[in-house]
Amino acid sequence: MFFASDNGSGVAPEVMAALAADSGYARPYGADEATAEVTALVRAEFEAPEAEVVLVASGTAANALALSTLCPPWGVVFCREEAHVAADECNAAEFFSGGAKLETLPGTDGKLRPETLAAALSRYAPGDLHMARPAALSLTNLTEMGSLYRPAEIAALTDVARERGMGCHLDGARFANALVAAGAGPAEMSWQAGIDILSLGGTKNGLMGVEAVVIFDPARAEELRIRRKRAGHLLSKHRYLALQMRTYLRDGLWLRLAAQANAAGARLAEGVAALPEARLLVPVEANLLFAELPEPLVRRARAAGAVFYEMGRTADRVTVRLVTSWSTTETEVDAFLATFG
Amino acid sequence: MFFASDNGSGVAPEVMAALAADSGYARPYGADEATAEVTALVRAEFEAPEAEVVLVASGTAANALALSTLCPPWGVVFCREEAHVAADECNAAEFFSGGAKLETLPGTDGKLRPETLAAALSRYAPGDLHMARPAALSLTNLTEMGSLYRPAEIAALTDVARERGMGCHLDGARFANALVAAGAGPAEMSWQAGIDILSLGGTKNGLMGVEAVVIFDPARAEELRIRRKRAGHLLSKHRYLALQMRTYLRDGLWLRLAAQANAAGARLAEGVAALPEARLLVPVEANLLFAELPEPLVRRARAAGAVFYEMGRTADRVTVRLVTSWSTTETEVDAFLATFG
Amino acid sequence: MFFASDNGSGVAPEVMAALAADSGYARPYGADEATAEVTALVRAEFEAPEAEVVLVASGTAANALALSTLCPPWGVVFCREEAHVAADECNAAEFFSGGAKLETLPGTDGKLRPETLAAALSRYAPGDLHMARPAALSLTNLTEMGSLYRPAEIAALTDVARERGMGCHLDGARFANALVAAGAGPAEMSWQAGIDILSLGGTKNGLMGVEAVVIFDPARAEELRIRRKRAGHLLSKHRYLALQMRTYLRDGLWLRLAAQANAAGARLAEGVAALPEARLLVPVEANLLFAELPEPLVRRARAAGAVFYEMGRTADRVTVRLVTSWSTTETEVDAFLATFG
Amino acid sequence: MFFASDNGSGVAPEVMAALAADSGYARPYGADEATAEVTALVRAEFEAPEAEVVLVASGTAANALALSTLCPPWGVVFCREEAHVAADECNAAEFFSGGAKLETLPGTDGKLRPETLAAALSRYAPGDLHMARPAALSLTNLTEMGSLYRPAEIAALTDVARERGMGCHLDGARFANALVAAGAGPAEMSWQAGIDILSLGGTKNGLMGVEAVVIFDPARAEELRIRRKRAGHLLSKHRYLALQMRTYLRDGLWLRLAAQANAAGARLAEGVAALPEARLLVPVEANLLFAELPEPLVRRARAAGAVFYEMGRTADRVTVRLVTSWSTTETEVDAFLATFG
Repeated sequence: MFFASDNGSGVAPEVMAALAADSGYARPYGADEATAEVTALVRAEFEAPEAEVVLVASGTAANALALSTLCPPWGVVFCREEAHVAADECNAAEFFSGGAKLETLPGTDGKLRPETLAAALSRYAPGDLHMARPAALSLTNLTEMGSLYRPAEIAALTDVARERGMGCHLDGARFANALVAAGAGPAEMSWQAGIDILSLGGTKNGLMGVEAVVIFDPARAEELRIRRKRAGHLLSKHRYLALQMRTYLRDGLWLRLAAQANAAGARLAEGVAALPEARLLVPVEANLLFAELPEPLVRRARAAGAVFYEMGRTADRVTVRLVTSWSTTETEVDAFLATFG
Repeated sequence: MFFASDNGSGVAPEVMAALAADSGYARPYGADEATAEVTALVRAEFEAPEAEVVLVASGTAANALALSTLCPPWGVVFCREEAHVAADECNAAEFFSGGAKLETLPGTDGKLRPETLAAALSRYAPGDLHMARPAALSLTNLTEMGSLYRPAEIAALTDVARERGMGCHLDGARFANALVAAGAGPAEMSWQAGIDILSLGGTKNGLMGVEAVVIFDPARAEELRIRRKRAGHLLSKHRYLALQMRTYLRDGLWLRLAAQANAAGARLAEGVAALPEARLLVPVEANLLFAELPEPLVRRARAAGAVFYEMGRTADRVTVRLVTSWSTTETEVDAFLATFG
Repeated sequence: MFFASDNGSGVAPEVMAALAADSGYARPYGADEATAEVTALVRAEFEAPEAEVVLVASGTAANALALSTLCPPWGVVFCREEAHVAADECNAAEFFSGGAKLETLPGTDGKLRPETLAAALSRYAPGDLHMARPAALSLTNLTEMGSLYRPAEIAALTDVARERGMGCHLDGARFANALVAAGAGPAEMSWQAGIDILSLGGTKNGLMGVEAVVIFDPARAEELRIRRKRAGHLLSKHRYLALQMRTYLRDGLWLRLAAQANAAGARLAEGVAALPEARLLVPVEANLLFAELPEPLVRRARAAGAVFYEMGRTADRVTVRLVTSWSTTETEVDAFLATFG
Repeated sequence: MFFASDNGSGVAPEVMAALAADSGYARPYGADEATAEVTALVRAEFEAPEAEVVLVASGTAANALALSTLCPPWGVVFCREEAHVAADECNAAEFFSGGAKLETLPGTDGKLRPETLAAALSRYAPGDLHMARPAALSLTNLTEMGSLYRPAEIAALTDVARERGMGCHLDGARFANALVAAGAGPAEMSWQAGIDILSLGGTKNGLMGVEAVVIFDPARAEELRIRRKRAGHLLSKHRYLALQMRTYLRDGLWLRLAAQANAAGARLAEGVAALPEARLLVPVEANLLFAELPEPLVRRARAAGAVFYEMGRTADRVTVRLVTSWSTTETEVDAFLATFG
């Protein structure tokens, strides 16, 4: 009963098998065959024949490389207050960018509204000597609150950003979960909706540790590659990143894994919503769930061995975050719900 | 016949087996059991009960984190011209440190002499307002030229550095090869010789991609951990780094793998030295070999499928670098030498 | 009728005379006599015999040096939304600190409330691996909205910060105006209220271009001095900064100049408040005034040659900022008010 | 008898008079009239109608802004070992550039040879993934050793750099002295010789503290202006920088002041060369002189009150640096020489 994070799941068997099968020599630093195949797969899946792909071992690296490529040291990145890049990456974006500013914007349910962005931008007079320069928008989908942007919602936000000449980044740590939840295609949810650089997550969804930075404007790719090397994120035995991502993107594995996580999330949400004194704080769209529960229920679940994070508490109620993953089974969900019974 | 780099070798079977065996849930970000065991193993192997261990997926990350912890933005790191940190890491140390300077020092055979370091330091008058401040020494063992520092040689260099209050870093990308070559113990070759932070390599010697930063002064560990997170080098499924390093350090696997690489290097060196017109440029101590060969020999080896780097050429002679690894067999070495016949 | 900024005023005659009187040779880089005298004067004025003083030519430099000394690259500086360091210095604090984050806090009238700060800090759980670390508080007095912190109000804020081990900075671009307005002494308004580093402004108040960074904890001074040099802010003919600051602090000139500016501000505020359709947005404490005026009045004032900034406008009303300086005369104020008549 | 540095001289009377004459209101941050006039003057003097001019208060700021505009964080700047940017600016170029590397090249007499530069560049294979990227050349004229590049020598060096797509910077802290010594024009010595950005010194040659960054390619100017603001080097009362530079460039004042310094340097060199046991280390071209003197002579000069720097000493001989300035008189030179008599 592990609901603390999809990061706590293991490696999907197909992925581990692919790693174990490759034990000979290979050119290091991405000159291997698997790496080339990953680029071809991404281009095909995203209907983006010129897209460039850069693999790294962590989501923070993917995001910080993307943002530093879109935003100069004197720039501003606009994002939500809860955005992982602002709240949970210990100033990585500021570090990689050489000192850019992240302006965090408020709202409900983890989603940014176009008018909130427009209002923030209106405070930056073009040509003002003294202020930093609006440079990038960073969205997360699936959001950190478990809510979902549909492609048209992303497009509405990137439209506002583009009017000010800004670049657009999508943190897709749970991109596959978002695609499945929205029933949308990869192209629709990324470059067709105005995204310049996507952090395409794999680690939370069955990989050992790989995220793909997908750069839809190939002119930006060379700089991002140099930044990766300079940040120590170009791994020497690069094929082992590529083998994971190749397996992930082949034959729809990534979407099947996400569908499993989302199904578990839905089952869990249904069960929690049915509890007499529980309340879901955000409508559940995929595999991430925030709920307010009576304190005794939380105690009971923990006593039974369930693992999950607490986000706050009052005298008698506790807000919890519950995350399902590609490896969460119906049995696990049901066992968890049974602890409340 | 792959002699391009020890980075081109695969993963040792013991290591792959350990990865494949762990597929359940685990606390992310290093709160798992394997991570704790790695720390215990390092402390035991290095006879350093207070040492702290930080795992990362690349040698550049290990080095840059170490140097930025030892050297402030206004500091100078002294190292050899060929040092990987200066020549092959695309300004990573400069980036992580916030703009420190690497002063590269000349010499023969890849090793720094204490008097060369002392002479360089003498140009920095204490209290000078205008110059950057000497802050760290960075050595590599095994060196980038394949030569070897013995513990007393390292101590002689760190003595010079310590007189100026500098911190001392050892890039041990091939630390196991150096230990085996010197017949020295881990403690002797590191903290007992004045090293503050060691980059303990694993990737070149049979791991998929893990280096351990070993911090002998625990007071420096917290900063280095924060720097790792900020640089995107704290992996979420951290156990998969730990499992590799645990397997590596258990039961002497690391030294056995290095001994295999060194033995292959010796066999190769002997064969090359016996060639009528060949010349070894640096005495071969371990698994890294620089040789000057007649051009036709080089052509013949390549035609037979051998893979290796060329470091320069004149009209009729070519300087090559040959690297053996944990997976290089006698058969491979002999087949390579036979191409010259 | 210049009310755009106190930066638009010239140099006080006493200051210009001191500059013109020194034309011989002097040791460069602060080894001159005037520089030593400035340190002595600051120590005496602030009753802080161990304080260190670092002179720079701009307020942005003073602030960014102070904040980067108090806040590591992975830290967070808390300040008001309107804080000059956050809104008007083009990411200078982020640059000097190597990528720290500025978290801007809301409120009314330009002043931060202790409970607002405490609430923001409560979101940073001690020991959290993922978040940046709370490191510094930055206040401005006189605030950017023209409001005033009294010493006890500053102390209440620094108390909250100190509980979390944070350093405290005061941007005193208009410190003399604040002292005069509060009837408080320099010590009372700085270190006695918990301030570690003060940016003591001179430029807006009659100097050509000098700000003193006053470091009350001498242990931090050496780092700040090195940072100044590295940032190109250690001027070679340093005596010309020192001569300005020496003249400023001698015989109370700084307070006399500020009193003149504040008196002009009060006269202006009284006149504006008496206009039938005008409204002061923040109670006027010193030399900075925000008012909402009917559009025709604004047009009339501009037509008569008055210079000032507009901060926003609706169909028929305009928000203006009016700033008086050491050189603003009663005649100027009255002429300006007469344009409305 | 002040020969320590031209930084130790005062302000030329014409310049001080210009400052004292301007005491009214003016638009801050460079929107004043004097600033516009400086740009026009520079364009005329340099026959460069599109050149942009950015004023700062220190040479380190001018150099670091120029280099960071020419060199990305992953780039390499090539310069001489003695270059002020490498040896005396406490990592300012590294800081401003976000972590670029300065590769220092050896040679005699302070001048870089094209073949030395070419050899250094040949070690950077185009397309190499691991090395930092050659990005900029930085020359100093008058060099730090007092030697002089003539325009054709500069062009020969920038030709080598341009073949690799590098930008070219000239540190002209003593540019006027170099022009006078070479009998060359400003255009000839800068953009016509391949220089992209010039640090045009004023402080050492009679100003209170102003250097002009002259950007010959206007496309680079906007970034440099933003960098200046972000570094705290855009002064609010900017007119006082502009007034200095305007006076300097009007009616040939800058060249007259430099001619005076050079004449004093020549007189001094002649006198020193005539001493029986003295030796000039570098042929004296302008106002900077390195000499080896018998120790008793040095002692005698100091006893008589002469001020100058010592660069090294053996048992009985001392190497000294002697610098003349716009304010050095024949009387001073003769009095100094007389101390040896």
